[in-house]
Amino acid sequence: MPAPLHLRSFRRSHELFERASRVVPGGIYGHASPAITGPGNFPYYATKAKGSRYWDADGNEYIDYMCGYGPVILGHGRPEVDEAAFRRTNEGLCLNHPTEESIELIETLVDLIDFAAWGVLAKNGSDVTTWCLQVAREFTKRKKILKVAGNYHGIDPWCTPGHAGLIEEDRAHIHDFTWNDLESFDAQLKQYRGQFAAVILTPFHHPTFQKSEMPADGFLAHIEAACRREGIVIILDDIRAGFRLHHGGSHRAVGFEPDLICFCKALANGHPLSAALGRKELRVAAGKVFLTGSYWNSPAPMAASLVCLKLLAEEKVVEQLARTGRLLMDGLVAAGTRHGYKTIASGPPAIPLLTFADDPSLRRQQRFCAEVTGRGAFFHPHHNWFLCAAHTEADIAETLKIADQAFAALREAEETATA
Amino acid sequence: MPAPLHLRSFRRSHELFERASRVVPGGIYGHASPAITGPGNFPYYATKAKGSRYWDADGNEYIDYMCGYGPVILGHGRPEVDEAAFRRTNEGLCLNHPTEESIELIETLVDLIDFAAWGVLAKNGSDVTTWCLQVAREFTKRKKILKVAGNYHGIDPWCTPGHAGLIEEDRAHIHDFTWNDLESFDAQLKQYRGQFAAVILTPFHHPTFQKSEMPADGFLAHIEAACRREGIVIILDDIRAGFRLHHGGSHRAVGFEPDLICFCKALANGHPLSAALGRKELRVAAGKVFLTGSYWNSPAPMAASLVCLKLLAEEKVVEQLARTGRLLMDGLVAAGTRHGYKTIASGPPAIPLLTFADDPSLRRQQRFCAEVTGRGAFFHPHHNWFLCAAHTEADIAETLKIADQAFAALREAEETATA
Repeated sequence: MPAPLHLRSFRRSHELFERASRVVPGGIYGHASPAITGPGNFPYYATKAKGSRYWDADGNEYIDYMCGYGPVILGHGRPEVDEAAFRRTNEGLCLNHPTEESIELIETLVDLIDFAAWGVLAKNGSDVTTWCLQVAREFTKRKKILKVAGNYHGIDPWCTPGHAGLIEEDRAHIHDFTWNDLESFDAQLKQYRGQFAAVILTPFHHPTFQKSEMPADGFLAHIEAACRREGIVIILDDIRAGFRLHHGGSHRAVGFEPDLICFCKALANGHPLSAALGRKELRVAAGKVFLTGSYWNSPAPMAASLVCLKLLAEEKVVEQLARTGRLLMDGLVAAGTRHGYKTIASGPPAIPLLTFADDPSLRRQQRFCAEVTGRGAFFHPHHNWFLCAAHTEADIAETLKIADQAFAALREAEETATA
Repeated sequence: MPAPLHLRSFRRSHELFERASRVVPGGIYGHASPAITGPGNFPYYATKAKGSRYWDADGNEYIDYMCGYGPVILGHGRPEVDEAAFRRTNEGLCLNHPTEESIELIETLVDLIDFAAWGVLAKNGSDVTTWCLQVAREFTKRKKILKVAGNYHGIDPWCTPGHAGLIEEDRAHIHDFTWNDLESFDAQLKQYRGQFAAVILTPFHHPTFQKSEMPADGFLAHIEAACRREGIVIILDDIRAGFRLHHGGSHRAVGFEPDLICFCKALANGHPLSAALGRKELRVAAGKVFLTGSYWNSPAPMAASLVCLKLLAEEKVVEQLARTGRLLMDGLVAAGTRHGYKTIASGPPAIPLLTFADDPSLRRQQRFCAEVTGRGAFFHPHHNWFLCAAHTEADIAETLKIADQAFAALREAEETATA
């Protein structure tokens, strides 16, 4: 970890962390844990956000390239979306029965997703990934699930990236293969022929602490053909990428067709909602797998989602994010080159990550992202970033100016260290 | 199932159900499924709610005794709570880091719950019940979980009331005993000595399709002593009863002390939030079990919860619900007696259920609740009811008048049938 840069004060963040540590195990749990960004040069606590900007607990302002880790796709606090949620909350937040919004939203999603004939709504990503596993098991009457090693599908015991509190039975029938490695896929299919209920995929590979990888030519087509042949259900976990790569599901952006698809994050611009949709053949199995939650009939996030999906289409947000993301990543790579650094822009431009070509310890990555963050654009060092529709070309230009300074500071620090 | 009573029209509910059935497996999934209340005499879809009242899709108004199945404790649309959520949403709904509200809320809960030293926040009840199992397994390094047969703890594979999509490994180490039957508890402990990580309990037993049962004298004390002796973690699932029986956790109402407690529902008057709190000894294990979700750092439901908890204390809602619940249930039993029916008021008055003493087919129960619902007070026939702070004595009096008419109608229908 690099020494603190003192570009900005994180004193209030540290005070809050100390206060939290008295009543919260580890102070901060989950993906926002300081253990992931590293201590010293990144904020720990937030206060507010608007448009493309957010502010940490010390009042530092950032151009936000995490967007709440994805949910914020139209920009923070998009008024049309929030007002729809407020209006619906004022009429009744938590009702005994579903409302017409639930039907309208599922109809809207079924219209958007080419292969889907039906859908269900939930709250968390894990709610729907785990439920889809059950639907696939019910449909196939098989037990085994094939997933990509290192892919994130939520926090349930079958898939959590944590190691504590698990028992061997949790993963007795969960098998891994390697992204873009068809030999490893075929080997699993051969070893457990007739036993796989489902393969669960993401549209691209985005492991934490590594660069992202798009699917290689033929990778998804091979999997699709094999699953059709073997009667294996294909689940697309589109929780992270959904509505950023294609308005009709990310399978359209990478060229294959799943049987079930999971959405969350960008579905309602931050209002809590997730969804699973599926092919007509899976409808009976889906109807049998119990699914519910205390707040799941709440129409407020559904009303927000209906507005969000409409604005995403009207404003051609997919195209916009591809454009601004490309502008950002091309600019970052060029800035790196100017300072003598070979960098890699990986993942799709709307959900990008910049890494260094020769940086096995990730120290350069840590230092560069800290230098950028300390100057006012939040670059997570070890997790992919997110573009949103509120990022203007002026935001990108400001970010590239910051990045230029950050590369210069990195160069200076490295030269000082080796002098 | 009784024939439709034609007391009210549910035409629009039926139209929406037909429309939904085209895109939603089973039309309505989960606890709101018409399969549970029975078709014909209960609404399927809601539109709005305010205070103690809610309206179905046909515009029928009800005094609401389900309260969204529990989350609504202060009454629907309590302005102070909703406005706190709106204000916080306007400042930033979905942020990259936690906010001070998360610390303040956990501090507040830790202060309220006598045995708790720490807490975490999530979205669904299942999120925290499943996580507590993992914490107990991590702490004890044991696999097995003991639960009460028929208790509901959520939808995850280890506990879902559904039967589809499960594999035997999901419940390989989940064992049941019978509520208020210490022999069945002791038998499990003896058979699997040293293997139980946790016992998960609710403060009272509330199985669907049956009357509720309070803990018998000595039942919880015996379990508590046995768990202390054997090093078994006690998890209190207080998701349904929390803040309705005691402001400091329902264990205080029934006289025992757990090691972990789960809240959801009433925590934020319907805003989506759940929580788990625990003893200091479990803090290290808790810090190791990964826990996160897309929307979990959102401060809006936390701001709502802080206001909700304050109002619950200031307005002595626990005492109020006990009083109005008692008024309702005493009145119902008396009304039944007047019409020659022996009824049973079970569960605590704040979360009550009325059943008939001699009704093995549940037909009388179905008919009576349909007669009441058709006259404007929503009585679920097969799931416990919920009181909220917006229920006035006038609401209770109106309900008792309706119930009197319903008993009379039931008597008339039964006499006609046997004539």
